[in-house]
Amino acid sequence: MTELERLGERLKAASRILSSETTARKNAALSAAADEIGAREAAILAANGEDVAAARSGGMKESLVDRLALNHDRIAGMIAGIGAVVELPDPVWRSSAAWTLENGLAVSKMTVPLGVIGIVYESRPNVTVDAFALALKSGNCIMLRGSSNALRSNRALVAAIRAGLEKSPIPADVVGFVDSEDRSLVTEMLGLRRYLDLIIPRGGRSLIESVVRDATVPTLETGTGNCHIFVDASADQEKALAIVENAKLQRPGTCNACETVLVHSRIAAEFLPKLQARIGSRCELRGCERTRAIIQAREAVEEDWETEYLDYILAIKVVDSLDEAIDHIARYGTMHTESILTEDYSNAQRFIRSVDAAAVYVNASTRFTDGGEYGFGAEMGISTQKLHARGPVGLAELVTVKYVGYGSGQIRD
Amino acid sequence: MTELERLGERLKAASRILSSETTARKNAALSAAADEIGAREAAILAANGEDVAAARSGGMKESLVDRLALNHDRIAGMIAGIGAVVELPDPVWRSSAAWTLENGLAVSKMTVPLGVIGIVYESRPNVTVDAFALALKSGNCIMLRGSSNALRSNRALVAAIRAGLEKSPIPADVVGFVDSEDRSLVTEMLGLRRYLDLIIPRGGRSLIESVVRDATVPTLETGTGNCHIFVDASADQEKALAIVENAKLQRPGTCNACETVLVHSRIAAEFLPKLQARIGSRCELRGCERTRAIIQAREAVEEDWETEYLDYILAIKVVDSLDEAIDHIARYGTMHTESILTEDYSNAQRFIRSVDAAAVYVNASTRFTDGGEYGFGAEMGISTQKLHARGPVGLAELVTVKYVGYGSGQIRD
Repeated sequence: MTELERLGERLKAASRILSSETTARKNAALSAAADEIGAREAAILAANGEDVAAARSGGMKESLVDRLALNHDRIAGMIAGIGAVVELPDPVWRSSAAWTLENGLAVSKMTVPLGVIGIVYESRPNVTVDAFALALKSGNCIMLRGSSNALRSNRALVAAIRAGLEKSPIPADVVGFVDSEDRSLVTEMLGLRRYLDLIIPRGGRSLIESVVRDATVPTLETGTGNCHIFVDASADQEKALAIVENAKLQRPGTCNACETVLVHSRIAAEFLPKLQARIGSRCELRGCERTRAIIQAREAVEEDWETEYLDYILAIKVVDSLDEAIDHIARYGTMHTESILTEDYSNAQRFIRSVDAAAVYVNASTRFTDGGEYGFGAEMGISTQKLHARGPVGLAELVTVKYVGYGSGQIRD
Repeated sequence: MTELERLGERLKAASRILSSETTARKNAALSAAADEIGAREAAILAANGEDVAAARSGGMKESLVDRLALNHDRIAGMIAGIGAVVELPDPVWRSSAAWTLENGLAVSKMTVPLGVIGIVYESRPNVTVDAFALALKSGNCIMLRGSSNALRSNRALVAAIRAGLEKSPIPADVVGFVDSEDRSLVTEMLGLRRYLDLIIPRGGRSLIESVVRDATVPTLETGTGNCHIFVDASADQEKALAIVENAKLQRPGTCNACETVLVHSRIAAEFLPKLQARIGSRCELRGCERTRAIIQAREAVEEDWETEYLDYILAIKVVDSLDEAIDHIARYGTMHTESILTEDYSNAQRFIRSVDAAAVYVNASTRFTDGGEYGFGAEMGISTQKLHARGPVGLAELVTVKYVGYGSGQIRD
């Protein structure tokens, strides 16, 4: 038995206990963990400082360092996030439907925990805390496998969480931490079907591809966002400038940031110079041939349309129609978030219906696809798959169902 | 491009049209297909007669021939099944939640079709019709891959469906039929990620194992039911006899039939002879050592506890406690349907909470886990996985969601 299998076995055993814990006891455990994170802030920040220093000296892009770095406010945000999860309704043992068959068999469709959830994630240490809180509240144990870049930060956070749980009614073994930089452990996790009921990969294309190829554990793919904004001919250009600026620059390292802007050819000559004036000094522009006939920009090649930059880079393409925009998105999008800026009613409706993505907006920034913004509290990520959950993955998505039938001797005719 | 890829491409193209068809037009298409199945009954029965004759001469078990064979009543049942789907509410573009953010962005969570669904299924030809009807009503195209044993029956049914669609507002290309006995095409389907949004394997353990290993298309595993009944010490024994008889013998070839009965040791000496008298002449009994000390039965070996017989065979084990029954089910069950027969309130509650399965019953036959019995209309199968759908897969399970945000220039703070 490998070390990972032993961890899986411990989590599976703990999940049998956790699945029938009461809401009050789970909330008490969450609060105890939050208190301990607060009490250990200095140690957590020190560990994070080492991670950040190592990342910078390793040449990590600043937009990614921003995802890794913690400070007092971000730790306060984590603690507030746990508090928000405490306040959310327990998603377990709720009935979405109940009815009685003609023969008297009373059937209820009840929510139950999944069991043990594995999560493989990138640099952001707040994911450690969010994932723990959401899993515990939904009655699931969690196996955490963060990025090597955040190993010290995550180790300090998990130590705080487990110390908090030791003071609570819930055993610390509901949380498992893969404390290793060995990447082969990710592949091993993907095959841990005996112990894991779900794996949530959060990360870039190569992680997702490895998951599609190798995983035998059911998965929930999250986090790949090659998001577009289509600026239609009828768009309010002042609003469009503010929206593109926000979607690209407010936090470029996030999956709901905009990577490519598609501009209708009828307004390109007017809009593109304004866009360059607005964001060109803070952001590298890469344009198609028609874009570069209007503004100075680096040449965008095929790879640019496919790339989730997660950086201060924006690709720009001039298109001749709504249909061309929809086709471009169908070809290059990752079914995360797509937005149309338009004052044309029919174009808005057609975009909403025809674009296949977790979230589709009219006249709004792509940055809104987020469990916090939607009011779901913390999230496990943004699902870009169609099965089980699509969009922000919150508490309601971390359960399965069980049909319960109360009978009195019923047999089938 | 292979023939299967060409079929996938045609279905994907058709799905873009089908996904925004109106309910009225989809219902008209369903009714046209039902009419044509009725008009072609003689041809369908002739084709099925050839399949049945070939199956019998190939030595197929009678319980499986029963799944394959059609007659007038079963064709009438298929037509009625389509009619029932016509009557069901359209599951597409319904909102499960809608709210407005503080900044005015109005968000709705809307249901949308998955796209193209593939189904790989065993001998029952009625699955062809149920799958077509559920897919069309939910706005999805379908790629049908039935058993070689039912090839002639399915070919005749699909011909009728397509001929019906030709007379309707919906193109016949929403239905694709893999008209081949070549088993390698199933493996190819499992990797057809570019064209298929979901594959539903219906069948035995070897199909499911191949799906877990090879599929890159998301899957919904259905149809493996190693179901148990636990006869507790306090059970009403007359009801228990009727329930076990029903669960084992009413239609042994179905996935919700009972395969193993667990009997509490305190009543075994009394109950087992009654059970043998009730069903022993119609059903082979295979018992553990303690069972065989009470009644005559063939020896049950490890393999018996693991086997979904789908036949006139019942395994019997004497257990000393509810916990032993729960442990046996956790070890050998397939998370389909499990039933406890008891008059003890606490044991009933503990069984319901502790047994991890799609459906758990108290004092009722396992045969009730069925979309028709539950009132969902036809079903795609019974999901035994935890993600996306668990239990009967009806219309409501054949959609995904899209968050739609109507804005007026919102940007994120």
